[in-house]
Amino acid sequence: MANRIEKDTMGTVEVPEGAYYGAQTQRAINNFPISGLKPHRALVRATIRIKKCAAQANMTTGRLDRELGEAIVKAADEALSGALTDQFVVDPFQAGAGTSHNMNVNEVLANRANEILGGKLGEYGRVNANDHVNMAQSTNDVFPTAMRLAALELAQELDGELRHLSEALSRKGMEFDHILKSGRTHLQDAVPIRLGQEFSAWGIAVENNRAGIERAFPGLRELGIGGTAVGTGLNAEEAFIDLIVEGLARETGEELTRGESLVERMQNMDPFVALSSSVKGAAVNVIKLANDLRLLSSGPRTGLAEINLPAMQPGSSIMPGKVNPVLPEVTNMVCFQVMGCDLTVSLAAQAGQLELNVMMPVIAFNTLFSMEIFKNCLRQLTTLCITGISANEERCRSYLDQSVGLATVLAPSIGYAAAAEVAKESAKTGNSIRQVILERGILTEEELEEVLSPYPLTTPGVHGKE
Amino acid sequence: MANRIEKDTMGTVEVPEGAYYGAQTQRAINNFPISGLKPHRALVRATIRIKKCAAQANMTTGRLDRELGEAIVKAADEALSGALTDQFVVDPFQAGAGTSHNMNVNEVLANRANEILGGKLGEYGRVNANDHVNMAQSTNDVFPTAMRLAALELAQELDGELRHLSEALSRKGMEFDHILKSGRTHLQDAVPIRLGQEFSAWGIAVENNRAGIERAFPGLRELGIGGTAVGTGLNAEEAFIDLIVEGLARETGEELTRGESLVERMQNMDPFVALSSSVKGAAVNVIKLANDLRLLSSGPRTGLAEINLPAMQPGSSIMPGKVNPVLPEVTNMVCFQVMGCDLTVSLAAQAGQLELNVMMPVIAFNTLFSMEIFKNCLRQLTTLCITGISANEERCRSYLDQSVGLATVLAPSIGYAAAAEVAKESAKTGNSIRQVILERGILTEEELEEVLSPYPLTTPGVHGKE
Amino acid sequence: MANRIEKDTMGTVEVPEGAYYGAQTQRAINNFPISGLKPHRALVRATIRIKKCAAQANMTTGRLDRELGEAIVKAADEALSGALTDQFVVDPFQAGAGTSHNMNVNEVLANRANEILGGKLGEYGRVNANDHVNMAQSTNDVFPTAMRLAALELAQELDGELRHLSEALSRKGMEFDHILKSGRTHLQDAVPIRLGQEFSAWGIAVENNRAGIERAFPGLRELGIGGTAVGTGLNAEEAFIDLIVEGLARETGEELTRGESLVERMQNMDPFVALSSSVKGAAVNVIKLANDLRLLSSGPRTGLAEINLPAMQPGSSIMPGKVNPVLPEVTNMVCFQVMGCDLTVSLAAQAGQLELNVMMPVIAFNTLFSMEIFKNCLRQLTTLCITGISANEERCRSYLDQSVGLATVLAPSIGYAAAAEVAKESAKTGNSIRQVILERGILTEEELEEVLSPYPLTTPGVHGKE
Amino acid sequence: MANRIEKDTMGTVEVPEGAYYGAQTQRAINNFPISGLKPHRALVRATIRIKKCAAQANMTTGRLDRELGEAIVKAADEALSGALTDQFVVDPFQAGAGTSHNMNVNEVLANRANEILGGKLGEYGRVNANDHVNMAQSTNDVFPTAMRLAALELAQELDGELRHLSEALSRKGMEFDHILKSGRTHLQDAVPIRLGQEFSAWGIAVENNRAGIERAFPGLRELGIGGTAVGTGLNAEEAFIDLIVEGLARETGEELTRGESLVERMQNMDPFVALSSSVKGAAVNVIKLANDLRLLSSGPRTGLAEINLPAMQPGSSIMPGKVNPVLPEVTNMVCFQVMGCDLTVSLAAQAGQLELNVMMPVIAFNTLFSMEIFKNCLRQLTTLCITGISANEERCRSYLDQSVGLATVLAPSIGYAAAAEVAKESAKTGNSIRQVILERGILTEEELEEVLSPYPLTTPGVHGKE
Repeated sequence: MANRIEKDTMGTVEVPEGAYYGAQTQRAINNFPISGLKPHRALVRATIRIKKCAAQANMTTGRLDRELGEAIVKAADEALSGALTDQFVVDPFQAGAGTSHNMNVNEVLANRANEILGGKLGEYGRVNANDHVNMAQSTNDVFPTAMRLAALELAQELDGELRHLSEALSRKGMEFDHILKSGRTHLQDAVPIRLGQEFSAWGIAVENNRAGIERAFPGLRELGIGGTAVGTGLNAEEAFIDLIVEGLARETGEELTRGESLVERMQNMDPFVALSSSVKGAAVNVIKLANDLRLLSSGPRTGLAEINLPAMQPGSSIMPGKVNPVLPEVTNMVCFQVMGCDLTVSLAAQAGQLELNVMMPVIAFNTLFSMEIFKNCLRQLTTLCITGISANEERCRSYLDQSVGLATVLAPSIGYAAAAEVAKESAKTGNSIRQVILERGILTEEELEEVLSPYPLTTPGVHGKE
Repeated sequence: MANRIEKDTMGTVEVPEGAYYGAQTQRAINNFPISGLKPHRALVRATIRIKKCAAQANMTTGRLDRELGEAIVKAADEALSGALTDQFVVDPFQAGAGTSHNMNVNEVLANRANEILGGKLGEYGRVNANDHVNMAQSTNDVFPTAMRLAALELAQELDGELRHLSEALSRKGMEFDHILKSGRTHLQDAVPIRLGQEFSAWGIAVENNRAGIERAFPGLRELGIGGTAVGTGLNAEEAFIDLIVEGLARETGEELTRGESLVERMQNMDPFVALSSSVKGAAVNVIKLANDLRLLSSGPRTGLAEINLPAMQPGSSIMPGKVNPVLPEVTNMVCFQVMGCDLTVSLAAQAGQLELNVMMPVIAFNTLFSMEIFKNCLRQLTTLCITGISANEERCRSYLDQSVGLATVLAPSIGYAAAAEVAKESAKTGNSIRQVILERGILTEEELEEVLSPYPLTTPGVHGKE
Repeated sequence: MANRIEKDTMGTVEVPEGAYYGAQTQRAINNFPISGLKPHRALVRATIRIKKCAAQANMTTGRLDRELGEAIVKAADEALSGALTDQFVVDPFQAGAGTSHNMNVNEVLANRANEILGGKLGEYGRVNANDHVNMAQSTNDVFPTAMRLAALELAQELDGELRHLSEALSRKGMEFDHILKSGRTHLQDAVPIRLGQEFSAWGIAVENNRAGIERAFPGLRELGIGGTAVGTGLNAEEAFIDLIVEGLARETGEELTRGESLVERMQNMDPFVALSSSVKGAAVNVIKLANDLRLLSSGPRTGLAEINLPAMQPGSSIMPGKVNPVLPEVTNMVCFQVMGCDLTVSLAAQAGQLELNVMMPVIAFNTLFSMEIFKNCLRQLTTLCITGISANEERCRSYLDQSVGLATVLAPSIGYAAAAEVAKESAKTGNSIRQVILERGILTEEELEEVLSPYPLTTPGVHGKE
Repeated sequence: MANRIEKDTMGTVEVPEGAYYGAQTQRAINNFPISGLKPHRALVRATIRIKKCAAQANMTTGRLDRELGEAIVKAADEALSGALTDQFVVDPFQAGAGTSHNMNVNEVLANRANEILGGKLGEYGRVNANDHVNMAQSTNDVFPTAMRLAALELAQELDGELRHLSEALSRKGMEFDHILKSGRTHLQDAVPIRLGQEFSAWGIAVENNRAGIERAFPGLRELGIGGTAVGTGLNAEEAFIDLIVEGLARETGEELTRGESLVERMQNMDPFVALSSSVKGAAVNVIKLANDLRLLSSGPRTGLAEINLPAMQPGSSIMPGKVNPVLPEVTNMVCFQVMGCDLTVSLAAQAGQLELNVMMPVIAFNTLFSMEIFKNCLRQLTTLCITGISANEERCRSYLDQSVGLATVLAPSIGYAAAAEVAKESAKTGNSIRQVILERGILTEEELEEVLSPYPLTTPGVHGKE
């Protein structure tokens, strides 16, 4: 492909002829061939929205010529509708605190705006990437604002998937509410519980995680846009700042506000640390859920086999007929990734210095990647696994009948020490607690029916008491 | 020291003669000689409070004999007043999901209650550790409840120290509000800022972290006590559950509530993950603060030297007269520890299985240790460092005058590209931006005074515009 | 695109008509739309090599029909030459311990081999993916073996880039060996050092990291192939095991050996933990290097400005003429990512259970991604930044002359306490150590010349002693 | 307790009358009341050894008066024999890169040496802490050298405990070599394995981790002592450097060497990162071991129950007769702590700047604490748990007979797809693979005996082939 020559403040650069981006983007392409990845679509979209709203605000304050401004807005709208998607090309691993990403968007919109106004790519006859598209902005306020908007978008999608998961678990909780089984603590026999209680508890746990994620939203909605280079607002008028915040609120439907101190909003990444931590918190609980599912569905013959997960794919290239819990497993893996991404976010966040945290690009990448894979994974988990789980009621009941944990029921009446003797005999002889109680004449068969009636044992109270 | 022989359900154990603890505690001492550390005083206190409130609740429901109950309450009150402190001895690295810690408290209170009732240590004539002190409880609901109460206590102390830090920074923000300096982004010359703006921004950041920590409180206040072994409440009457939650609320002054699902509250550690994450979030911001302080106070001759930290101790065993920024440095270290502890909390939290997370002891240890050292460190940082910081106003101003970042002011009027030429000449020749502007005749001296008047440059607006 | 119908042990699946992959791959595509990423080319290549060597070994043992075997080998060779690249499509976030990836390769080679033998895609007339391409193998030994081979390939590329970096630093060490400057500890004035010593030290540090990475190679070279499903070697003959290890050694040029216990090699991921830790260790040192570069090149006016980094791109969208240390910055970010990936590797590695670690896919992804971005980044850092660094000799010397650290030189002769008085007077008055010494008459000008002659001060010894 | 007044270069300080430490230690006590912990005994011991060897070297070079030198050596020897232990008091969370710790040792030895020479505490009449005890040293070379020596000591103790663990596992491997059971991958039925193979594999894994830890030793043995303040060796004669390294080698029995570049050895913490990573690597494998033990011993009725762990203590305060796998559990917790400590080490290591890493104290604390608790825990695990494990042979065999994984054996003869049909029928009907094979007439009973003879199935080969 032929190249055109562009010029920026550092000299000339060869840019592919048909590219809507320009010199600075090309320098970034040359400087940062790191991961081969492209920016997350939500980050691109958010940045374009900022450009659009900035142009509108600058027209309103009278600083930007209407014709140029309208061309920028039109270019932005086209890009938001999905045009030019392949023009946003800078590797997520880039430096300059996101300057290259910001200039990529500035250049693409400048070129397209010029084209709209009758100009040619690379000539910037009327619309200048820095002077017009980036007017009253700095990467230092644009990039973290774009990160916030993109993170909010992804976080809400993730929140939705967590809700679906939680609802699916709750529904199973109701479906399995009658299934009695032995509880297990330390993986050892414990007192009775209902399978439905287990599913409901998982559902509530996920619901708690959702609340945690939502608690991160207000911090993300407080914007630093208008702070420009160091948060003081140099080159951005007061009116502009309020206008662009309003514009973005309108454009995104989010209740966005202007940060209390734009200086502060520029330096600190704590809203992303908080969001990432909450997402990690969800991952931690979901790991436990996935592990429990894998444990309870272990088998078919050599495991616990209390529940069955839907079979999704052949489980082995060598063992015929093997079926693995693939959705819980991939969920584990995605959650481990989320935890790793969270560490990177913290590392990058603590590395800010003075007026800016230049590590923002890696924070953006990890926050968005982490939520992207987590939400996609949860959707698969919910729809392909949770909703299709069935229970092995008989097996559950058989564990319950054999569980040494039933001795606990005796403790209030005969004391902990005496009850322990019963448990030990059961464990040693292999006889059930029920049998030992009868043999030792501790209770009559009638009393036993009353005391060991399993459903009440899964609710509060001292049972067998008159 | 002579030993007495005690007996538990597994056999006999030798216990030191004067010990208030008993067989199970002694087994734990023998099993877990891991770190040599003792349980955090707040965790002990919280566990004793649970025992006291449980005894009161059990007397109210009529299940516990009044005389025994009152003796337990009296023993608990003594322990809360500081008696018996050296009797809580089980290593924080213990297993059994905290059973040993719980039994340590049960045994100490049982022995002391028996003593009050005229009995002898180790005889348990009337008050039994399991049947009476632990009545209607399980380690599985006692331990996480104690963790919550202890964590709330420490978190509030930490919150207080963050408040002091934030206030001290804000006060310095006001004190230094008139001091003009060059901002720095990427550690490179940027546009003007006021030293006071920097301090205020740090203060606001800390304030945001406080809010984050406080957002974790509601989750901690939702208790699982009454769930007993697996959260179903077996052996705990409904009335008991409500009574003990009320009792603990009264005893601690916290707005405690009974968890929505006690089954759920028993398995998941997300309130601790959330708290620990928020504490980590504060550490992340405080690392940046400490780094900035070390950077701005670097020198005296070979660094930036914009501010002076109080000299606290000789800084070198070999370099005479050296003074180091010791409080920011130790703050960095403590914050790194907090981040490591947070990882351990997450690792332990994800390792829960089915009805219980048996890794609770290590979560308790890390949550409490982390907050303990963080709050102690912040107190030293605030009182010995922040409040004594002074500014080198002249040096700040001299950087400002030389900063190449001043070229930014020209961009709105002469365009980004032309302004870049000015900046490049300044960087190349060593002449100030002011000089280059005058030499090139871009502005008259008068216009320059107006445009480069520094205070306005630290506020929003396009400056030098009519 | 039209689909064809394929059948596996679980039923029928629609597969795109022209696809070389088959039913199981398609199921994985449907089950795991998580990240949208493709497997690392090195992992694909390694897996194909295993298939090729397996076919050869199986022909040698006589278990595999020659005609079928040769077709598989031919298909593998084509794929190794770059054909079929777009047919390896399963998301790195997949479950089944890599079964889908393994089956993807099995299916592609089976289809291509059948095609070579005159068959049609999707018909598997002669070559069966499981029975022939996967003969004597299980995902459980194929996947970790492929991971090892791919990791070795990437690790050696990374090692090469670290060598280039270390050499570039050492060359700069020689170039700058004559430049005297003040050392800094705690960012405070310390005793003299030469700029060349700093660069050389960085070079040696990187060299040490290389050694650390190379120490992980032997563990990776010990293969578990032949262990099949659980490491016992069921369905793989003894001769096959030795043959395939030899084949792979020949094919890769690596000194590969058969693991001491194939059971052990199947379960544990410690060779990847060790490699990932060593890569993280390199990242830790490189972060420090990048930070030091950013610190020493800070300025141009408001920083230390002892060195200049090559200008790579305009540094700001708002501040004209700004140039940022973009390569060190992106290096920091990549290193933070490497540290996050390392955490994920550890998390996944500790999650193995019994005969297998099913979390291998996420270990593969993070190990390879991490090394990929690290090596790419280091190449840019070395070639675009390190090699072009220049020094500001005069500035270095001026810091040296003013450094309060020079008082250290006096301590051996006049004692630590008296030398501290000199340092304190210098710090207080702003006079240089030299001036204070002369004023106080501690040394004559002649003695001073001798004692403070700077070059010797950067070498061992008590200076100024006759 | 009454205080005496001491004076250092910053003024006067009150020191407790009987204290052997002095002004600078007291300042550190006042500045760093962070954790309440004391320095690890191994770090104190290592620092004292450095002081002793420095005094000897300084006497040899003639710089230190023999009488003073001998007094210092005597004081050091007393301290190494256990005297003065309570005088090393500075919190591990201290700043100044360990200056306070170093001065604590300097002051204690100076006071004791003066006392030996007839002087009084706090008067420093003849032996000065800085000028004599610290002669030719800086905290910057003393502290990292002490860290290395202490780390080597602990690492060797840890290594020994890993060896005991590995040997105990191997012995169990032999004891259980005849016990046939079903393997499990993905917690699902897999092909046969012997219980002894599992134990042996764990033992080999631990052995591999030992090798990993030992690979970190050479880096730790390369010392930076003699580099003094910034690694250039200012104020330390060449001869001194070689003498002190030799002295330390003699004193410790370690093959210590002088670092290639003392400048480099001063700045970088990679030997500690490498050691800590290797210890973490061991923790990762040991977590898996502990998890496997807990899984296989789960029960007694509601779990897998293939093995029995020795009962160590009552497992529940509410469930009588419950016994938990307390040693594996506490091992999990300790390993999670080790992983958290490793993160802190990495964080602190990456925070070095220019000539020094001032975060060394927190690296020392975490490295030593981590190894201390790990070795103590492993000792308990080995002696109280592993050596007492027994097997439930019958249960193992019964799982094996029922395992659907046995279908794998058929694949080489009847093909993967047909074998899958057998497996599916078995899973669906509950009939064993053996039954299905017979019913379907796939093999005769005789052939079946041959093919399914279990011991051969746990070794390489295609079974049932003539």
